[in-house]
Amino acid sequence: MTVDVIDLRSKLAQFADHWAPRRVARLNDYDVKVVRILGDFVWHSHEDTDELFLVVSGDLTIDFRDHRIVVGPGQLCIVPRGVEHRPRADAEVTALLIEPSGVVNTGDAGGELTSVTQDL
Amino acid sequence: MTVDVIDLRSKLAQFADHWAPRRVARLNDYDVKVVRILGDFVWHSHEDTDELFLVVSGDLTIDFRDHRIVVGPGQLCIVPRGVEHRPRADAEVTALLIEPSGVVNTGDAGGELTSVTQDL
Repeated sequence: MTVDVIDLRSKLAQFADHWAPRRVARLNDYDVKVVRILGDFVWHSHEDTDELFLVVSGDLTIDFRDHRIVVGPGQLCIVPRGVEHRPRADAEVTALLIEPSGVVNTGDAGGELTSVTQDL
Repeated sequence: MTVDVIDLRSKLAQFADHWAPRRVARLNDYDVKVVRILGDFVWHSHEDTDELFLVVSGDLTIDFRDHRIVVGPGQLCIVPRGVEHRPRADAEVTALLIEPSGVVNTGDAGGELTSVTQDL
């Protein structure tokens, strides 16, 4: 059994669509994913889990109902469970996401941006 | 409640010792930690959990009993549960670690490099 080295930028270079996370690894029962972000996502929350965003490139804005944050390259944030949030980016952002397997990207909101995680 | 933006390099600048991970965030029941690595760690394994290493700076070698990998900046690997490994670095490496809270850094090996995770 050989342990893989996963290069985030190489993985991100393999697709171009936005808001469609690709799984690059599993950590126990969590998915490690990469995603391209552009424009506004939907307001949503995940009732049962926190969500980790680590930005690889660009500046990711996350709106909350009472404040907003901007997460840049080499920075991360944890969106706590149950907290409504809206990721968005005026210019393209690439990011690493970590959350339990099976979490739906649009959380409680659903809609056309809902994406089934694919393996890369 | 304000969501924090966590800058990995800023967090790493707050300490200088090696092999002593600092927790910078929690993701459900997982710890998100940063660590400075220099020299050879002990051979060890974690029977009950995988472990994620994401390198921030430097080149991290991880020896396994039958192969080795080198993980560079922007690259990650998942060391599977139960697999013996030895992290090491000839020049200083900084990295992000993610694993369940309470995991002991030296796993089944113990010894003087065992470190209790501190908050940063």
